[in-house]
Amino acid sequence: MASLYACIMAGGKGERFWPLSRSSRPKQLLAIAGPQPMIAGVAELNAQLVPPGRLFVVTTQEQAAAIRAALPAVPADNVIAEPCGRNTAPCIGLVAALVSARDPGAVLAVVPADHCIPDRDVYARTMRDAAAVAEREHALLTIGIEPRYAETGYGYIAAGERVAFPGATVFSRVKQFIEKPSRDKAEALIAGGGVFWNAGMFVFRAEDMLAAFRRFLPEFAPALDAIRASAGGEGRDAAIRAAYDAAPAISIDYAVMEKADNAIVAHGAFAWDDVGSWTSVGAYWQQHPGGNAVKGDAALIDAENCIIGNEAAGVIGVLGVKDLIVVRTGDAVLVCHRDRAQDVKKIVQKLREQPGGSSLVD
Amino acid sequence: MASLYACIMAGGKGERFWPLSRSSRPKQLLAIAGPQPMIAGVAELNAQLVPPGRLFVVTTQEQAAAIRAALPAVPADNVIAEPCGRNTAPCIGLVAALVSARDPGAVLAVVPADHCIPDRDVYARTMRDAAAVAEREHALLTIGIEPRYAETGYGYIAAGERVAFPGATVFSRVKQFIEKPSRDKAEALIAGGGVFWNAGMFVFRAEDMLAAFRRFLPEFAPALDAIRASAGGEGRDAAIRAAYDAAPAISIDYAVMEKADNAIVAHGAFAWDDVGSWTSVGAYWQQHPGGNAVKGDAALIDAENCIIGNEAAGVIGVLGVKDLIVVRTGDAVLVCHRDRAQDVKKIVQKLREQPGGSSLVD
Repeated sequence: MASLYACIMAGGKGERFWPLSRSSRPKQLLAIAGPQPMIAGVAELNAQLVPPGRLFVVTTQEQAAAIRAALPAVPADNVIAEPCGRNTAPCIGLVAALVSARDPGAVLAVVPADHCIPDRDVYARTMRDAAAVAEREHALLTIGIEPRYAETGYGYIAAGERVAFPGATVFSRVKQFIEKPSRDKAEALIAGGGVFWNAGMFVFRAEDMLAAFRRFLPEFAPALDAIRASAGGEGRDAAIRAAYDAAPAISIDYAVMEKADNAIVAHGAFAWDDVGSWTSVGAYWQQHPGGNAVKGDAALIDAENCIIGNEAAGVIGVLGVKDLIVVRTGDAVLVCHRDRAQDVKKIVQKLREQPGGSSLVD
Repeated sequence: MASLYACIMAGGKGERFWPLSRSSRPKQLLAIAGPQPMIAGVAELNAQLVPPGRLFVVTTQEQAAAIRAALPAVPADNVIAEPCGRNTAPCIGLVAALVSARDPGAVLAVVPADHCIPDRDVYARTMRDAAAVAEREHALLTIGIEPRYAETGYGYIAAGERVAFPGATVFSRVKQFIEKPSRDKAEALIAGGGVFWNAGMFVFRAEDMLAAFRRFLPEFAPALDAIRASAGGEGRDAAIRAAYDAAPAISIDYAVMEKADNAIVAHGAFAWDDVGSWTSVGAYWQQHPGGNAVKGDAALIDAENCIIGNEAAGVIGVLGVKDLIVVRTGDAVLVCHRDRAQDVKKIVQKLREQPGGSSLVD
């Protein structure tokens, strides 16, 4: 069996986690869903699958140093800073090129840095099974998550015919990728069955992904060839810069997966949380009476259904309020209605426009 | 005409202004209703009436140094620290004794340190007129404020027959002191007319007040005589300590004014605000669209009817909330429903009971 490599995509800005997240310290570097930075949890998860030398991270120029510090076991050279953000397709092409240069038969798993997967064993088994199917079928695997409710914030994957596999994981051909649906459509999808949340995790032979790029993004393929030719040499960073100058900003779903006829979905049976906003973070904090979730020092009186996070020395006093998110850092406080957690980035944008405000968001 | 003296009573704890107020830095030392500490505004107000040498302040041991610093024009010896809090009667007796020792014919005005009176000229005229009536009638004057609405947080004064006076201020005999009323009773009082808010401000000849103490608090009168005998000498502080050891904790209203047959109410026609909670403070801050009042750096999106006070470097971000009070200091944040502003002291009490919490309230 081919060697497995893994790549963590860590390009997110995490503006929804202001004031804790800053552009230099986004969600994946925060310990919001446990005792360690999220990316360290994801690295541990994948350390079950690959040795540190086969684990890559693709991130931004701003975050590279912090990520190297957060993941001391990963070789510094495996933490690759993109010259600029270009969505997921160029990032995945880049890593496929580097990995295939090192190991032409390699299978590569690509996962986001900022998801929380408590069921480690099921995750590891699913990814290993997916790698076996990818190698056997020369297929592009995507990991679907059994949907628990009619979420409108995720894309969905409709499963087609089953793919025979002797292990514990179930696989199907992908019938259709479905964009983030309306509430009604999400409910209809759940009711109809046979759909999965699109978790943005992929497993494939590096050569197969490069072949897909040549087919579906032919104008970008030469840049990936140049990266592959430079891999391990001094020209690598220059080749990456040149590739990103020419790269389209497009997701791997749009660019490749939706067009491919060899897409297979693994039925992921593990708990998964993309921890998309402060509302989801509350579940990982201490639960207090009245439906309140608390982290850090706080004094609550007559508070109900609140998420209170204190990340600095001192205290948050809360009196006679409900359905609020209150997050305090040394230099800022967010007070936000629970229903508006997705709009926290608007505060970030507003601050960026105010004199002196950028120091509070960058 | 006799010389006028003034005394500012500054013993308040100001727990309703947490987190800005602490027991060492109560409301009167805060610049919550203008650019300077409230007590400095009250001192300026009374500097229209008396020279600094005739202005006294009675305060707590904890606050004395800060008050001397806030009022550099007032002789340090005129800032008197009570050995312990005993409500207003012992405080007023103490100052009456000290002033009458210095100037047996003196008229004394006693006012709280933490009220806001923007109409300075009307205030000064009212107090001068009250001093003239006090001297002429040997009466104990209380300043009533024309009530603007049916406030349940104040006591009321029912006016009886008018007292002839040639100046602009109107005076009446006090018919009755009325304790803080219920909502219904307050509305009936306002509808009936002839009532005033009890603002806790008094004007009287020092000797007349001492005579009232001898009549209504005879067991405490000898202690005041001892203070008078020691005034200006080295035994003063010891006499004050001895007096407070024996002093009842009682308000001047209960102890003297309600019993006196020579109480007169001045019809105060000036704007007056006791700035009793964060809700009242909002009126002195910058008014923003949506009924929001803001002090300091903040970013508001879809906020309505909020009071946002930022007293530290950094920012408060507010998103999608209404009717909230948010106050941020370097070491604490308060998030409180507007309707619960009177209960902020409960947060203070709760913090006092938590390990390490006293450093956040003292």
